Amino acid sequence: MTAHTHQTAPTQFVAANGIRFAYRRFGKPAGVPLLFNQHFTGTMDHWDPAVTDGLARDREVILFNNAGVSSSNGDVPTTIEAMGANALAFIKAIDLKRVDVLGFSIGGLVAQEITLQAPELVRRLVLVGTGPRGGQGMETLTPEAQQIFGATYNKPEELWLKVHFTASEASQAAGREFLKRFLRRTDNRDPAVNEKVAPAQIEAIGKWGVQRQGSYEYLKRIQQPTLVINGDNDVIIYSINSWILQQNIPNAQLIIYPDANHGSQYQYPQRFVRHVADFLSEDV
Amino acid sequence: MTAHTHQTAPTQFVAANGIRFAYRRFGKPAGVPLLFNQHFTGTMDHWDPAVTDGLARDREVILFNNAGVSSSNGDVPTTIEAMGANALAFIKAIDLKRVDVLGFSIGGLVAQEITLQAPELVRRLVLVGTGPRGGQGMETLTPEAQQIFGATYNKPEELWLKVHFTASEASQAAGREFLKRFLRRTDNRDPAVNEKVAPAQIEAIGKWGVQRQGSYEYLKRIQQPTLVINGDNDVIIYSINSWILQQNIPNAQLIIYPDANHGSQYQYPQRFVRHVADFLSEDV
Repeated sequence: MTAHTHQTAPTQFVAANGIRFAYRRFGKPAGVPLLFNQHFTGTMDHWDPAVTDGLARDREVILFNNAGVSSSNGDVPTTIEAMGANALAFIKAIDLKRVDVLGFSIGGLVAQEITLQAPELVRRLVLVGTGPRGGQGMETLTPEAQQIFGATYNKPEELWLKVHFTASEASQAAGREFLKRFLRRTDNRDPAVNEKVAPAQIEAIGKWGVQRQGSYEYLKRIQQPTLVINGDNDVIIYSINSWILQQNIPNAQLIIYPDANHGSQYQYPQRFVRHVADFLSEDV
Repeated sequence: MTAHTHQTAPTQFVAANGIRFAYRRFGKPAGVPLLFNQHFTGTMDHWDPAVTDGLARDREVILFNNAGVSSSNGDVPTTIEAMGANALAFIKAIDLKRVDVLGFSIGGLVAQEITLQAPELVRRLVLVGTGPRGGQGMETLTPEAQQIFGATYNKPEELWLKVHFTASEASQAAGREFLKRFLRRTDNRDPAVNEKVAPAQIEAIGKWGVQRQGSYEYLKRIQQPTLVINGDNDVIIYSINSWILQQNIPNAQLIIYPDANHGSQYQYPQRFVRHVADFLSEDV
């Protein structure tokens, strides 16, 4: 298993909660594994191998598709709570006793839910390009997100140049490098998600995003050491939501990258890997 | 010179602008040296040897007292601009052609001024526990700062437990460790500042802190790669000012530490040294 990488790790399957979950695991089987929770409409192939292989140097990395997404069957639930419960069923089905959890975008909402529902299972938490319940501009897609997801592109993957990167020359150049890495795996790529995924995920995000008095109170219950990372100009989940997460989670560190949009970890993969690896291996 | 440390580096003197500047330099004489700009009423002895020696492992570190402070003679000016000009005179007097600049608190304001007045001299900038012109709560001392600096303490250095650390048990314990390190140097400590320093520095901070339309525009002129670091609960210069710095300096990274007040770098010295050293040695 250690010889496998992002490109070569076979897709495996495990049944739980009536769902057949697709997953891949690779990296150094030492210490606590790191579970990746993916963004809106994304599959296991939407992770950046520079990030996954980079983090797999010192730990085992586990990618999976949550229920109803791509190679996992079942339905996408319309609440983040149910997505968290499905992710937990998967974690238990592969018999993990302790896990570090990384979530990106909607995956960051699911990562929070996993932590709230099973705090004893989660050692450390990494929240990337995401936000709190009732965060700013989260009740519907932001105007920028509506424009970006509503547009058409010459090649479908060019959507991600707009979602994950800013308009600057440097950011777009980093984006084109990301697209090359992202397309590098050729064998057994995940199928694209079906047409039921986006509406269900949007409904779930919308319920999560409703602003209420005391929306952020639940964050006090996240006791795990947490690292919050985002770009300084995230137009999909506004960057200020990362500030709010840091200010309300008791033991959270915040890192904001310059000239970066929603996918700051793909713009600065080496820096991101160093920051996350340092955080996961730090004594305090 | 390489054999010297924070504890042993002799205090040297150089004349410029009619001022005799006191300074110490130590560390590995390789690459671009790092110049430290100190906080309100602080001297060279108020730096944490865990930070200065930690950063001196891979670069030369230069501490100095700006005009009118402790072992440097002359008067403390009542504007940050003039403090910046004095610091520049010092930099030129010791013949530096290129320098990385770190500033903490009022030293962070001076560090910004150095960069604005001589952009060609400054390679990278580290702004710790500081804020922008016209930042939030910077026009006068904050209510918390007034209370903390106005109180009396059993031992004078216990003031810094309140200024630099939060009320939590963990933060106060880190503070007591900091005080031990901070008192470790016994030979040739700097004399305490005279009674003219605090009023002049407060006047300068007050002028800098005046809120005006477009107060933050000048930050666009800071083109250097910049790292902004603060605690998440800074009551001396409110933490939100670090967010504002990041959002307005074109190429700035932000790192916020948990359960930390104004002196977050003294609470997490290893983490701080790692983050700053990575930033200063990074290719991009």
